[in-house]
Amino acid sequence: MKQVVTFGEIMMRLSPPLHYRMSQASSLDVTYGGGDANVGAALAHLGVPAAHVGCFPDNAVGQAAAQHFRGHGVDMRHCVFRGERLGLYFLEVGASLRASRIVYDRYDSAFANLQPEWFKWDEILKDAQWLHWTGITPAISASAAQATREAIAAARRRGLTVSADVNYRRNLWQYGQRAQDVMPELVAGCDLVVCTEGDAEDLFGIKPEAGAENSFVSMSEQLMARFPNIRQVIATRRATQSASHERIKGLAYAEGHYHETGFFDINPVVDRIGGGDAFISGFIYGRLHLPTVPEALTFATAASALKHTISGDINVVTPAEVHHIVAGNTTGRLLR
Amino acid sequence: MKQVVTFGEIMMRLSPPLHYRMSQASSLDVTYGGGDANVGAALAHLGVPAAHVGCFPDNAVGQAAAQHFRGHGVDMRHCVFRGERLGLYFLEVGASLRASRIVYDRYDSAFANLQPEWFKWDEILKDAQWLHWTGITPAISASAAQATREAIAAARRRGLTVSADVNYRRNLWQYGQRAQDVMPELVAGCDLVVCTEGDAEDLFGIKPEAGAENSFVSMSEQLMARFPNIRQVIATRRATQSASHERIKGLAYAEGHYHETGFFDINPVVDRIGGGDAFISGFIYGRLHLPTVPEALTFATAASALKHTISGDINVVTPAEVHHIVAGNTTGRLLR
Amino acid sequence: MKQVVTFGEIMMRLSPPLHYRMSQASSLDVTYGGGDANVGAALAHLGVPAAHVGCFPDNAVGQAAAQHFRGHGVDMRHCVFRGERLGLYFLEVGASLRASRIVYDRYDSAFANLQPEWFKWDEILKDAQWLHWTGITPAISASAAQATREAIAAARRRGLTVSADVNYRRNLWQYGQRAQDVMPELVAGCDLVVCTEGDAEDLFGIKPEAGAENSFVSMSEQLMARFPNIRQVIATRRATQSASHERIKGLAYAEGHYHETGFFDINPVVDRIGGGDAFISGFIYGRLHLPTVPEALTFATAASALKHTISGDINVVTPAEVHHIVAGNTTGRLLR
Amino acid sequence: MKQVVTFGEIMMRLSPPLHYRMSQASSLDVTYGGGDANVGAALAHLGVPAAHVGCFPDNAVGQAAAQHFRGHGVDMRHCVFRGERLGLYFLEVGASLRASRIVYDRYDSAFANLQPEWFKWDEILKDAQWLHWTGITPAISASAAQATREAIAAARRRGLTVSADVNYRRNLWQYGQRAQDVMPELVAGCDLVVCTEGDAEDLFGIKPEAGAENSFVSMSEQLMARFPNIRQVIATRRATQSASHERIKGLAYAEGHYHETGFFDINPVVDRIGGGDAFISGFIYGRLHLPTVPEALTFATAASALKHTISGDINVVTPAEVHHIVAGNTTGRLLR
Amino acid sequence: MKQVVTFGEIMMRLSPPLHYRMSQASSLDVTYGGGDANVGAALAHLGVPAAHVGCFPDNAVGQAAAQHFRGHGVDMRHCVFRGERLGLYFLEVGASLRASRIVYDRYDSAFANLQPEWFKWDEILKDAQWLHWTGITPAISASAAQATREAIAAARRRGLTVSADVNYRRNLWQYGQRAQDVMPELVAGCDLVVCTEGDAEDLFGIKPEAGAENSFVSMSEQLMARFPNIRQVIATRRATQSASHERIKGLAYAEGHYHETGFFDINPVVDRIGGGDAFISGFIYGRLHLPTVPEALTFATAASALKHTISGDINVVTPAEVHHIVAGNTTGRLLR
Amino acid sequence: MKQVVTFGEIMMRLSPPLHYRMSQASSLDVTYGGGDANVGAALAHLGVPAAHVGCFPDNAVGQAAAQHFRGHGVDMRHCVFRGERLGLYFLEVGASLRASRIVYDRYDSAFANLQPEWFKWDEILKDAQWLHWTGITPAISASAAQATREAIAAARRRGLTVSADVNYRRNLWQYGQRAQDVMPELVAGCDLVVCTEGDAEDLFGIKPEAGAENSFVSMSEQLMARFPNIRQVIATRRATQSASHERIKGLAYAEGHYHETGFFDINPVVDRIGGGDAFISGFIYGRLHLPTVPEALTFATAASALKHTISGDINVVTPAEVHHIVAGNTTGRLLR
Repeated sequence: MKQVVTFGEIMMRLSPPLHYRMSQASSLDVTYGGGDANVGAALAHLGVPAAHVGCFPDNAVGQAAAQHFRGHGVDMRHCVFRGERLGLYFLEVGASLRASRIVYDRYDSAFANLQPEWFKWDEILKDAQWLHWTGITPAISASAAQATREAIAAARRRGLTVSADVNYRRNLWQYGQRAQDVMPELVAGCDLVVCTEGDAEDLFGIKPEAGAENSFVSMSEQLMARFPNIRQVIATRRATQSASHERIKGLAYAEGHYHETGFFDINPVVDRIGGGDAFISGFIYGRLHLPTVPEALTFATAASALKHTISGDINVVTPAEVHHIVAGNTTGRLLR
Repeated sequence: MKQVVTFGEIMMRLSPPLHYRMSQASSLDVTYGGGDANVGAALAHLGVPAAHVGCFPDNAVGQAAAQHFRGHGVDMRHCVFRGERLGLYFLEVGASLRASRIVYDRYDSAFANLQPEWFKWDEILKDAQWLHWTGITPAISASAAQATREAIAAARRRGLTVSADVNYRRNLWQYGQRAQDVMPELVAGCDLVVCTEGDAEDLFGIKPEAGAENSFVSMSEQLMARFPNIRQVIATRRATQSASHERIKGLAYAEGHYHETGFFDINPVVDRIGGGDAFISGFIYGRLHLPTVPEALTFATAASALKHTISGDINVVTPAEVHHIVAGNTTGRLLR
Repeated sequence: MKQVVTFGEIMMRLSPPLHYRMSQASSLDVTYGGGDANVGAALAHLGVPAAHVGCFPDNAVGQAAAQHFRGHGVDMRHCVFRGERLGLYFLEVGASLRASRIVYDRYDSAFANLQPEWFKWDEILKDAQWLHWTGITPAISASAAQATREAIAAARRRGLTVSADVNYRRNLWQYGQRAQDVMPELVAGCDLVVCTEGDAEDLFGIKPEAGAENSFVSMSEQLMARFPNIRQVIATRRATQSASHERIKGLAYAEGHYHETGFFDINPVVDRIGGGDAFISGFIYGRLHLPTVPEALTFATAASALKHTISGDINVVTPAEVHHIVAGNTTGRLLR
Repeated sequence: MKQVVTFGEIMMRLSPPLHYRMSQASSLDVTYGGGDANVGAALAHLGVPAAHVGCFPDNAVGQAAAQHFRGHGVDMRHCVFRGERLGLYFLEVGASLRASRIVYDRYDSAFANLQPEWFKWDEILKDAQWLHWTGITPAISASAAQATREAIAAARRRGLTVSADVNYRRNLWQYGQRAQDVMPELVAGCDLVVCTEGDAEDLFGIKPEAGAENSFVSMSEQLMARFPNIRQVIATRRATQSASHERIKGLAYAEGHYHETGFFDINPVVDRIGGGDAFISGFIYGRLHLPTVPEALTFATAASALKHTISGDINVVTPAEVHHIVAGNTTGRLLR
Repeated sequence: MKQVVTFGEIMMRLSPPLHYRMSQASSLDVTYGGGDANVGAALAHLGVPAAHVGCFPDNAVGQAAAQHFRGHGVDMRHCVFRGERLGLYFLEVGASLRASRIVYDRYDSAFANLQPEWFKWDEILKDAQWLHWTGITPAISASAAQATREAIAAARRRGLTVSADVNYRRNLWQYGQRAQDVMPELVAGCDLVVCTEGDAEDLFGIKPEAGAENSFVSMSEQLMARFPNIRQVIATRRATQSASHERIKGLAYAEGHYHETGFFDINPVVDRIGGGDAFISGFIYGRLHLPTVPEALTFATAASALKHTISGDINVVTPAEVHHIVAGNTTGRLLR
Repeated sequence: MKQVVTFGEIMMRLSPPLHYRMSQASSLDVTYGGGDANVGAALAHLGVPAAHVGCFPDNAVGQAAAQHFRGHGVDMRHCVFRGERLGLYFLEVGASLRASRIVYDRYDSAFANLQPEWFKWDEILKDAQWLHWTGITPAISASAAQATREAIAAARRRGLTVSADVNYRRNLWQYGQRAQDVMPELVAGCDLVVCTEGDAEDLFGIKPEAGAENSFVSMSEQLMARFPNIRQVIATRRATQSASHERIKGLAYAEGHYHETGFFDINPVVDRIGGGDAFISGFIYGRLHLPTVPEALTFATAASALKHTISGDINVVTPAEVHHIVAGNTTGRLLR
């Protein structure tokens, strides 16, 4: 099977153990993740060949990050080791009514300072069938945005499927360009996007039509009208109860049809970071292995629910484990 | 007070900490347990003298397993140290909708290779009042089945009470004999059995009568008819909500009467392994110290509920702690 | 801003990790706390200058306890380092229906053996605006009771606000005087007390009037009648579901008005020790920074709810974090 | 084989992990030990039946201490569970030129408050061949001294061998009697003592004769002259290099002959606590299983050296492991 | 650069933390290793492309082992996932005069039960330049020996360099064939072997000539005479001081010349497992990147010395780090 | 006693536990330190009032750093909380011949971006007797250099003693000014400097006179000639054996006399970071409390030796502990 290729920044994540606050910690749990690389790693666990393209400082910290993803089975051959620092963030894990909190320390990272010409996309995508990126990447720096542009162009040129998690984060865009100016061109190159009504309004000024029966459908139709390459729009809907109790369902609009799953209940949440990445990786798996959109959507949502029970950014689950949940085995009966 | 003697295999249990998956773990929590030895250890914590009979490799691993149970107060004097390896299993602890998973690595253990003649049951049972075994033991090997047979025979000869947790596990029976051929003779020697309707059908072909008001009663009556030594049949009923949320109640049929307790709610579950062993040890305690079957049953079910809040296989609780729950103190108010 | 000064014993708290029982632990988590010092430390995190007055053995253990509070920002300058031992206790952390349990080992501590004359209250309270104490302090020893008496007298003399958490614990009073004889004089010097109907009956023989619409109001009015300095009576009401699930609301009676908050739901509880101390510290903060009693009460109750999600005795939260909860953000949505 | 019985206090030992100082620790490693019980536990690991007699508070802490020794194979049947607290101490583990430091918190323990009549020595010693005690026990309280007296008397009455580690610790004797008054009568009942020249001078006023060729021999001869039951005197000589590097040899005077071993070099030291207890347990083993005093002495010294490489108070080693060292295998070549 | 391919069993290694004994451990550190795979992983860290060929059970345990090596950069594409169990061993880490001890539990592993036809060597070795194996592999089972035979044959056919660590372990050979019968044919296919005088005598009956000036040279010359493909013989010489203090030097005989390095002193040893594998991987690196045998030997020995300071089986070092040691920087001055 | 005030950057230090490499770590030990703040914290442990002046990001990370030093007893009142990030570094702890390695990630920190006018030195130094700074501070940024300049000016104006550790680190100076241009003016304001011959040559072009009997004296005399305020020059001399074994002695030149101590041997080293800071803090203590320079020097060197046995940057020792070493008690005999 040909590779799914992801492109984006991988950061170090440092968390006080259990539910400690930063000032209480004498050690920090360390792992590595990124919204796109997580998709690749989850796909590798699902048995889909995955490669990630990124940029790391050429020191013990950058090597550790790359080794982490290599261990998860991601082909890291195209990564570049140049630059000074790995972006990082501190995560205090909340509980009950106390929210988890992130303090970012990611500016001026090796990835932010990449040069687009370091990446020969035609070479990189030679064995690939799919390119996936997220809206975080073009938000980091002008050069990261340019590299994304080139990756998408090469992918389209080579006939790959292109997907994106548009994932708009207002306070990331600090290099002098507006998301509203950069994103449309990039999204225009996509076949599939993860996009909520909020994202669509913020980025593209698209609002569900007044009186629309289903705001997600209305948004999706307008999005597809604006960007004709887009054939599928998906998203998760969360009914968050507390930092420890999550409920999610999946939504999809494709081929003129709307689909949604029932709610999956996760209580307690072990680790919510990467839940969205697990969703899109599940959907990509589904489109590659399952016959219909609703089956892919249910698989994706079950995969995302499972991710909430797994430590770290990456959804370490097999297809059989996801199908077990899809089949309704959610009562946690011991498997021998 | 005379001893309760248990017979069976003790295995090493290796679990990634917290809810990690095997591939994420750089250390594994280690403990030791066995369906019968756990009953003895729980009884020792309840103040009932207990001895366990087993077989361990004569190396640091076997010694560690024996030392673990010795620490819990179990008389390990009759154990034999011969053979090559300790059976072991890997337990990934689930959460929410993700089930816990066990990978067994137990074949060809020192226990499986025991010689029945190593155990002089008349000597071993000299100071005993009760023998307890589980359906796992005769499933392990022909020699283990034979030793169980001899233990039961000696116990009956000496007038001990004999109990069993029939606990049918289909994929354990791999040494060339069928559970359906081996178990009836062994169960015939019991005064008390833990048996569900499923076990009874699988092992003895006993199905609740069509239209029976209470399937457990119907099964129990047929079981008693077939095996006249059996005077009491007990079981737990689980209404499992998720890997983190369990609800259990206890059932008993004895002296022509059916008893059941209310549901005990356990949320979150700390460790579900050994919950059944805690139930039977609580019932044995109850029959030795409490006047009636319903009181023993409630004590047993409360003990099992408490076990779900305690790490490891063994129910480390005192009688006072169980009675505290029986008295309805389940809201967890701090005890100073 | 002037200091809030607290007076009382700080103990070492030793807990088996996770939900282990004492006999299962090969290490014990260690922290330090005291019902009054915890109030000071929480205030320091809220930005209110706080000083604690206590007595520690002059050894590595006493120094560690003092250093702990110094780290939390408490001025420990007035503490005395004399005596032999630090009081300590062992805490087994329960779960679900298993309650947490404390084994105390606190007699004959350096604090219990303090000499009242070691504390020059006029000097200590020179930069203070508020004195807070708890009913535990006069329960420890005659000399501790006497020092409390002197502290209150000095505080009143200097025009400070005086508050107390009356916190009656029957089995603490073992030095030959009765709480009922000692406490009234001390409470008489207070402007604000935390007091439940149970405390009021046990300590002062005050029972809500038969048929009173609101027992808390009835109790508070009688308390104020008996002790005219008291202007505000507050308390929390708990609807404890299990060791892992708590619900609390706050009550206040002040200036002839009764106020109560809605229930805050905490599931799971991370650490319930110090929840009451967080409440009173929140209320003191509220009286110093917020315009009305109901606002202070809501702030206090939200602070207490947050404390249940934080390890250790001390409420490590900022005012912004409490206001975030007060504003209804209790679904734990990730804060970036 | 008949039991070796030990009598004395078991304490909780709390240490910051690695080489942390108390104020740096957020957890403390916990274990349990006592100068006499450690001898019993080491003997149990060497295959010699051992029983310990002690007194513990009847709570989770006391039970944990007893369970610890039960796990090591010591018969704890004669222990009494009455009283309030377990004595404890804090151990900061040094390194290189920084010495390890102990802060004791042991006064008023359950053991100190024992009543001599709780122990029926004729019953306890029924299956015993040997009684061992240390000079710490009579130092704790008058009642502990009295119980020691009664134990020795019963042992002599029953023809047991009696041994003692005289182990004089000046600052322990605080209950109003002098070691110099109490110890002679007790030592008079011993067949074998561990005693250094310093102990002999401090306790019995015995000084090596001026100009004696061998001060240990001179001391031993005078000791035997004063206490005619004593047939063997042993000790270790330490040439301590640093907190991390120890060198020890063993000395014995028996049957008119002096023996000493070469130095054993231990670098690094893993845990020096219990090194002396390992020595005496090794010597007891030697007297029971080896033909000559020098062989017993070498075995004892090698056992003590091994103890320095093992965590905790107890020498967890088999006879084969000690003989391996005795045979000169001290280069640590991997054993497969 | 073309790959170095290794073939052999990977086992789980379970060690009590620090210097604990098995019976003292409540968790076990877990890692994975194998004498051949370790060579590949070390080469990957040195920048040499490496692939490993092995066989794992198709469960979470086998996947974890493979993921471990994948993380270290080894191409695991040719591994087979079939069979029941992963071989494992328990390692107690000694200190000072106490040796480390291994308890093996490796029989009947997935690797032992492999079928030679699962491995298509011409395909596997397509991109390879070097094949490395160890004497452990043919010792495991007849089928493992057969697969080794086929691998060597294919390698020679394709013109690869073949190296072996003959590593004779008497008690491994238990499947009915003698090492002395199996090994000669395999060694005959090698260009380079790690072999000590002891191995040569045990396996091939080769003894250094009486009166030979240099026993290693004498042995090597005879080995080369017997097996004409062998062009280089290397080994390490150890002057082990204790479990914590090691001294090693490297020996080589090649092209008629004998070379040896000075001693490298390692004190303390962090982890001695894999020291030999680091040596051979260093030598392979040296032959590929350095001009002369002595330079390769010094690099290999320095790499092995470094390995003793690194946890786990695998030598996680870069070429620059080894060259830093080669250049004499062994005083450990902080590198900023 | 009046305060010693330090000024400089505090960074987060992140280390893999034990001797792990970055890529092997799933958690990182976290502590905080800075070459100047460490001096203040050590002084606080020695009983000398200390205040630190620094700049931290106003988030959970900055607060944690400040809380750490506050716990050690340092007055942090004058610190400013403004800016984006805390500088940090990764430390791999070496062993034996493997050196420890640091990867810095410190650019663009809150401290580097401080504004000199944020610090009102006359106010800050109001209660101070001593100002201490290091050569790292002016290396960080122009504004940090300017603030140092202003601090020294204010200190001299107010008659404080000024000391500096000149500590030249070539690769830190990256903001466009040369150390050789900046440092002379700053050093000119000092009474006491820590300076090696290497520093003097690199920074000031001072070389020991050819043929000088004592290069340190020659350098010191020239330094004093150039900067007449300097009255004392001190340094440590290291005879580093390995990453695990250090030997240090202290040198001083003052009042025309040269002093040096003997070597202190540290084996093993627990943590070498902060050894120099411990030396200068010991010397400051000595000048404040001991009569002569040689006594201060011995105290300082013993303090530095002790630091090598203590985890973290800060020398957590009391004066009595240092005097114990000074008195020759370096064999690590257990202190009870």
